[in-house]
Amino acid sequence: MTLKRQAVRQQILRAAADLFRDRGYRATTLADIAARLGMSKASLYGYFAAKEEILAAISRETIGIFSRNLALISRSRLGADEKLRRVVLSHVRSVVAHRSFLTVFFSEEANLPARLARALARQKDRYDKAVEAIVEEGIRQGVFRPVPARLAVYGLLGMVNWLYKWYDPKGPLGPDDVARSYVDLLERGLLVPRSLRARELRRGLLRLQREISAVTAHLASHGR
Amino acid sequence: MTLKRQAVRQQILRAAADLFRDRGYRATTLADIAARLGMSKASLYGYFAAKEEILAAISRETIGIFSRNLALISRSRLGADEKLRRVVLSHVRSVVAHRSFLTVFFSEEANLPARLARALARQKDRYDKAVEAIVEEGIRQGVFRPVPARLAVYGLLGMVNWLYKWYDPKGPLGPDDVARSYVDLLERGLLVPRSLRARELRRGLLRLQREISAVTAHLASHGR
Repeated sequence: MTLKRQAVRQQILRAAADLFRDRGYRATTLADIAARLGMSKASLYGYFAAKEEILAAISRETIGIFSRNLALISRSRLGADEKLRRVVLSHVRSVVAHRSFLTVFFSEEANLPARLARALARQKDRYDKAVEAIVEEGIRQGVFRPVPARLAVYGLLGMVNWLYKWYDPKGPLGPDDVARSYVDLLERGLLVPRSLRARELRRGLLRLQREISAVTAHLASHGR
Repeated sequence: MTLKRQAVRQQILRAAADLFRDRGYRATTLADIAARLGMSKASLYGYFAAKEEILAAISRETIGIFSRNLALISRSRLGADEKLRRVVLSHVRSVVAHRSFLTVFFSEEANLPARLARALARQKDRYDKAVEAIVEEGIRQGVFRPVPARLAVYGLLGMVNWLYKWYDPKGPLGPDDVARSYVDLLERGLLVPRSLRARELRRGLLRLQREISAVTAHLASHGR
């Protein structure tokens, strides 16, 4: 595909995603998409023969972006905690950058042709499993608590995917601010640590210090 | 409304939600809904004059369930940590119990008439703010760390809402299992606590124990 053709294709996908998101997939026609781009319907047909193909391309692109980023992180030699931090950061950035695509992808999954839907489900499953492998690696390395990894991953992905519903690019928070807060919440949780063990140890330490002072005083008075 | 009428209304909403979820809102007709229920189109009209009204009723019911449960918890005299635990549990249970409604609600928000969409957005906003108030209460009470409350709430709601995408009622996990894992993750996070302070204290304790043993040995040899 020539560079020019590739650029036009991307423009079509982006315009279609915006329209699908704003009006719904079924209510949008190929004519609407061509009109939005100031293109003739005939030239649009030169790229996509049917609306379904556009939806399929949007879905493939969306999953492709996430999978490629994750693969780079998984293959790195970082510790599991740092890997997970980067997964959250990269995922949040991608959700924010591709919000239109994602909104369409998450809302219109039911409208995909069955074969494509199955292929994408497999790709999503591979993504989930790769994140799960990082959590399991962290548990083995002793940096993560022994949580049920699959559930933790669904929770984490829910947190970050949900941005497509509420994130406002005109708001005060950049994607990296959100990612930092989420990493902190996922790593350390909400509760103030009770440090019961620390408190008990501190009490034992004070007791010993008193005893040793008493002995020292005793020795001093008898050693004179 | 008579009890009989109310029961039929609920059946219509449930059947419609299932159809909207499986085929998409736009592809489903009132005739499909009537057929699914073995009802004539004329009697269905006695309940809802248009498909849009059914979607509106589904959306109102869905938010209504969540809001009522949350109000009960917010008004209770429990500590903020226990309140938040119950919010997660109640939210997860409702997502699982009303999965069809929620799938339609989350996917078809864009298809709602503007006035209704605004009213529902206000109700959702009240829900978010009520959960946020619990997190802020917990921070004031000193049980939660001083996290950005709004972001923590979006994260938490993302985790629990996302169940509508992946939860399989035929799978091995009940809603309460999921809620328990999520509460644990939200409260304590993934990281194994470093307990640096505990480690330092333990070191100090050992040093003191060695000193006291030395003194005791000294006393024993001189006291003979």
